Amino acid sequence: MRAVVSLSICLLVCLALGLACVLLVYLWSSRFRGGFQWDGSELEFNWHPVLMTSGLVVMYGYAAVLYRVPLTWGQSKLPWKLLHSGLMLLALLLSVVGLCAVFDVHNKKNIPCLYSLHSWVGISAVVLFAVQWVAGFTGFLLPWSPLSFRKLLRPLHVWLGGSILTLSIAACVSGINAKLIFVLKGNNHTEPYSRLPPEALLANSLGVMIVAFGLVVLRILTNKKWQRPDPQPLDTAYRPLNQEEND
Amino acid sequence: MRAVVSLSICLLVCLALGLACVLLVYLWSSRFRGGFQWDGSELEFNWHPVLMTSGLVVMYGYAAVLYRVPLTWGQSKLPWKLLHSGLMLLALLLSVVGLCAVFDVHNKKNIPCLYSLHSWVGISAVVLFAVQWVAGFTGFLLPWSPLSFRKLLRPLHVWLGGSILTLSIAACVSGINAKLIFVLKGNNHTEPYSRLPPEALLANSLGVMIVAFGLVVLRILTNKKWQRPDPQPLDTAYRPLNQEEND
Repeated sequence: MRAVVSLSICLLVCLALGLACVLLVYLWSSRFRGGFQWDGSELEFNWHPVLMTSGLVVMYGYAAVLYRVPLTWGQSKLPWKLLHSGLMLLALLLSVVGLCAVFDVHNKKNIPCLYSLHSWVGISAVVLFAVQWVAGFTGFLLPWSPLSFRKLLRPLHVWLGGSILTLSIAACVSGINAKLIFVLKGNNHTEPYSRLPPEALLANSLGVMIVAFGLVVLRILTNKKWQRPDPQPLDTAYRPLNQEEND
Repeated sequence: MRAVVSLSICLLVCLALGLACVLLVYLWSSRFRGGFQWDGSELEFNWHPVLMTSGLVVMYGYAAVLYRVPLTWGQSKLPWKLLHSGLMLLALLLSVVGLCAVFDVHNKKNIPCLYSLHSWVGISAVVLFAVQWVAGFTGFLLPWSPLSFRKLLRPLHVWLGGSILTLSIAACVSGINAKLIFVLKGNNHTEPYSRLPPEALLANSLGVMIVAFGLVVLRILTNKKWQRPDPQPLDTAYRPLNQEEND
């Protein structure tokens, strides 16, 4: 009971931090960076931080902790597996559209793509996320997935899931930091980043919220006491779609 | 036996990646950034990436996985606890000197300190590391540490340990990215970052190595099969210094 209470508090903190991330990144892009368009301008770029934060971090994190929600424990696992998979797919799609935005802007401005360390880490996160989703869907949902594959996949799925979130956090922090260096140059239009004008304070706070959200998600995922009670052994707990499932 | 073989391979990969990080950051600072001094110039700044990478990432990671080295398992745990604590203290001291270098350079050049998101994440990592070290030393090594405190501390120590490494990775990636933006401006002296000159390739590779090292360390730490076999319950396994210890 005590474990459920502390888990529920952590889940509420996770929910609140995720919403705060989405709100802050939206405010940054809309209030300080001029809003959104899809025209190859800086306004198209603004979709990039919003979609990566909402998809690769927040929706990803929510989908990752789904099995830890105590309300779902008394019920069949199958609908929650489908929801986990569906939310992850939506998170992946948001991330891919977020990448398209920045590639489009770079191409239209003749700026090379994928040169910065930020982009290397970010693209690694999205590619690994796509691999993870395909492997997870194949292993845990497709009917012909062999038990040996599922057994091999499970610990890798858990580790890669945490690793992708770690990569996403590093990509977000480096991306926010780089964007503020680029736009807060201290010329006629802006105060310098080093004087911490309101935009810098807001975007730095966004970075802090993303880091805090990621650490809370990782805390929820790694605490063994907070795992979904699963009386069945692995071979039945991970039955694919076409088999009876009551866990 | 199979678990020991795969753990040993992971530990060797971890060792190699850590050495590669130190080599690459040293090469970056010495070959491309002019080497080292302690005179308030950019040459003093060069200590910052070298000491943070060596201390806050590599030595921290090595100290974190120490208990997972199978060679240590048949022996008393006490000397390994002392070595873990000593290596962590050295890692903390290297990090603090690395911070002093950047503060000193900023002060001498009248650049404000702690304005960037990179610095917020980095200073959080070092402050949490200091708190973690003091709490770990007090809880696991001091003779008067009560059992209830050790029981409470253990899961927090494990989680905070991983969180500090995650913060360190994010700080390193954002720091390398920002430094390359600042120095590779594409003026008379340098090619732009976007053309990926040799310095950018080397420093980006350093970032990739740091991320890979961090993920391997987290993998080693989170795999339950790779934990030090500990036949004793928590109350005796975490006996402080002045009590008999055979685990």
